[in-house]
Amino acid sequence: MIYGAIEAGGTKFVCAVSDENLTILERVSIPTTTPEETMKEVFAFFDQHQPNAIGIGSFGPIDVNPLSETYGFITSTPKVAWQDYPFLNEMKKRYDIPFGWTTDVNAAAYGEMKKGAAVGKSSCMYITVGTGIGAGIVVDGKVIHGYGHPEAGHLLVRRHVEDTYEGTCPFHKDCLEGLAAGPAIGNRFETPAQNLPTDHKAWEIEAHYLAQALVSYTLTVSPEKIIFGGGVMKQKQLFPLIYKEFEKLMNGYVATPNLEDYIVPCQLEDNAGITGCLLLAEDALNNK
Amino acid sequence: MIYGAIEAGGTKFVCAVSDENLTILERVSIPTTTPEETMKEVFAFFDQHQPNAIGIGSFGPIDVNPLSETYGFITSTPKVAWQDYPFLNEMKKRYDIPFGWTTDVNAAAYGEMKKGAAVGKSSCMYITVGTGIGAGIVVDGKVIHGYGHPEAGHLLVRRHVEDTYEGTCPFHKDCLEGLAAGPAIGNRFETPAQNLPTDHKAWEIEAHYLAQALVSYTLTVSPEKIIFGGGVMKQKQLFPLIYKEFEKLMNGYVATPNLEDYIVPCQLEDNAGITGCLLLAEDALNNK
Repeated sequence: MIYGAIEAGGTKFVCAVSDENLTILERVSIPTTTPEETMKEVFAFFDQHQPNAIGIGSFGPIDVNPLSETYGFITSTPKVAWQDYPFLNEMKKRYDIPFGWTTDVNAAAYGEMKKGAAVGKSSCMYITVGTGIGAGIVVDGKVIHGYGHPEAGHLLVRRHVEDTYEGTCPFHKDCLEGLAAGPAIGNRFETPAQNLPTDHKAWEIEAHYLAQALVSYTLTVSPEKIIFGGGVMKQKQLFPLIYKEFEKLMNGYVATPNLEDYIVPCQLEDNAGITGCLLLAEDALNNK
Repeated sequence: MIYGAIEAGGTKFVCAVSDENLTILERVSIPTTTPEETMKEVFAFFDQHQPNAIGIGSFGPIDVNPLSETYGFITSTPKVAWQDYPFLNEMKKRYDIPFGWTTDVNAAAYGEMKKGAAVGKSSCMYITVGTGIGAGIVVDGKVIHGYGHPEAGHLLVRRHVEDTYEGTCPFHKDCLEGLAAGPAIGNRFETPAQNLPTDHKAWEIEAHYLAQALVSYTLTVSPEKIIFGGGVMKQKQLFPLIYKEFEKLMNGYVATPNLEDYIVPCQLEDNAGITGCLLLAEDALNNK
């Protein structure tokens, strides 16, 4: 049995195939240009390996509602060439096999739950903080899809008292992503985020926004584990600042695990998404 | 087959029994005083009817984590007599039958999904706005329990620009409950909420806070339906104000159903909770 995986990101598509133990046999990275160009290479890869099922975790927003006419589409993405692209349909036309279909961050959350930081749990949240902020959620062992999929990176947050930066989000200006994704940190201090010293004020402000979002997520879905990925979260000095701020904002209202066990870095690092996709391929085959 | 239900609220316990079609055969309302007094009457009711399973929807916070030592307890409630009360254990000691156990608002969400405003959906959110604000969530046909249960009424919100009221929440001062539950509306304008005219500024401020919370919930769990219950939501002029504000805040970022179909009043009204509890009793019996 061969499982296939596509982690479709805004800058690159990672495609992989594994054996039935989820050991990766081969992987390629394909630049995200236009559907024509990118998908040609995706097809070439899977034509060669003939997987029995493929799990897809895609950048979005995507349509995850099986009752919708545009189920399986990438929808209102700012990447113009990919707007309204019927991704899943095109894959199904090419390969008559079962597919898993979710967001890139849901796939990463699923990967971390089954093989990473949340092994043994039945719920978790995965949050990536990089050029954008995205969140995936697993509840009761399954990725969350409701009417659509979570877009929790755009949560509305309260401003840090010392922060006057207007925010970068084209939809909401100063939502979480607008104030706390990598570009916002860089713009606020006119220095790329990774060049700011670890004791810079920037990290206190960043922790304020992230902790606020985690309090909201905890109050809303109460996951057993919150897992951070993405470039910004490589700044490990953020974690203690987030614990402190989370504690202050929650003020003992609901019980959580010890914060050091509750809010953690991802374990699978760059493999979280692809692992989740392989697991979704396995599920798709078992449920077909 | 007889199903039993307990909707355990902060002011009264409603107990009911139904036949297997969920038709209620008898119900009683018992004041919430101390566990000794209240539970004596609860036991008297069920001793008489001998149900085959009982579903409990309780005020909280409660412990819903089956792995916890205090599973089935009411935990840190401000009602001192009920703090750390082993509710489910006491019921199990008395009756050797299957039990369902969740929050009052989760039970109401489940009732509305199976028999009310969200029939045919697999996910929904139920929000009650009264003396407090509570929210229950059903995802993929099941009420959400993670590490704990949702307490989404305490979401941190941004202030309405004209609102200087400090907020009533003993934990967070100006969280959603602190700014938008019935007592906050009344205190802000020194007039009981129900006496304020329908075109009073109060409702615009109220809609601002509720819409903000709904945007956060939608971005986080993307339910197929959001259902409002509780005394404050009998002010029907709130609904169009909420639609307007929701639209403004979301700014087209994620697709939702038409707002008039998405954000609706509850259908079962005062029976949502008890119906959900009966359904949980039925589930408990089927899964035992």
